Amino acid sequence: MRENCWQGNRNASSSLGMTLDHARRLAAHALELAQKAALLGEVPVGAIVVQQGRVIGEGHNQPRALHDPTAHAEIMAIRAACATLGSDRLMGCDLWVTLEPCAMCAGAISHARIARLHYAASDPKGGAVEHGPRLFQQPTVLHKPEVYAGVGEADAAALLKQFFAARR
Amino acid sequence: MRENCWQGNRNASSSLGMTLDHARRLAAHALELAQKAALLGEVPVGAIVVQQGRVIGEGHNQPRALHDPTAHAEIMAIRAACATLGSDRLMGCDLWVTLEPCAMCAGAISHARIARLHYAASDPKGGAVEHGPRLFQQPTVLHKPEVYAGVGEADAAALLKQFFAARR
Repeated sequence: MRENCWQGNRNASSSLGMTLDHARRLAAHALELAQKAALLGEVPVGAIVVQQGRVIGEGHNQPRALHDPTAHAEIMAIRAACATLGSDRLMGCDLWVTLEPCAMCAGAISHARIARLHYAASDPKGGAVEHGPRLFQQPTVLHKPEVYAGVGEADAAALLKQFFAARR
Repeated sequence: MRENCWQGNRNASSSLGMTLDHARRLAAHALELAQKAALLGEVPVGAIVVQQGRVIGEGHNQPRALHDPTAHAEIMAIRAACATLGSDRLMGCDLWVTLEPCAMCAGAISHARIARLHYAASDPKGGAVEHGPRLFQQPTVLHKPEVYAGVGEADAAALLKQFFAARR
């Protein structure tokens, strides 16, 4: 169950003051970062943080290269955006990511006060938004973003599938 | 409900090949880091990662100073320990922290493959181990550590209480 799914839904994108073309461009930007991760042999996930239409932080998955299990795309993008703003809060910002966030990343999204989370592919195994602990639906959650899923899903899912198929 | 509570329980500490004195020393080390955070005006939480009795990473809470919402004590200690080992996995290691981890940190503990988590004070509002999403009890959890709670609880809880009372 997705809280909001605006795949091909112009009304939902319009309600955010954003055309679907613009939404697709932001999803494509995150996908480029996921492709970068794949080329480096990391699980292909990419993320960007956007403030009023401007990308203020990007990240790709790189726990192996950095020897850091917390170096998921979302964490990298959030840390970069916070460095840009000189703040530990990203109020009013959007996070675009190619895969449904895990519990660690969903927790970071909450701590950062991200206003809107957009993710492409869902992750029944490791996801913590529409799967597993469904973190933003917990009564104790500190802050929950609006959640939009599905823009760019096919490309993001294909990249992950291709990556894991090549490793079998 | 705590999965394991070994406060004053010599049998539990013995079963880990550890005296209660040793356990208290490790909890005191984490508490010193929490006190450091308090002196810097950060919520007082401290953490260490221990491998075969040796501290290989420490951290204190510092999201404000670092402009990084992910800079919780556990994340800092895990990143430091991973840098020490040159690996993104901390197999066989123990993490000692003064407060029940939040969802972000519990997720990081899972990703890092921490073998045993020891926390002092419980956190009904923000905790994600014995409260809220109870992350390690989720069927989709990737890796769950053994959990021990309560050693050093009184001191860790008093430090937090004192910190928040001074800010009211």
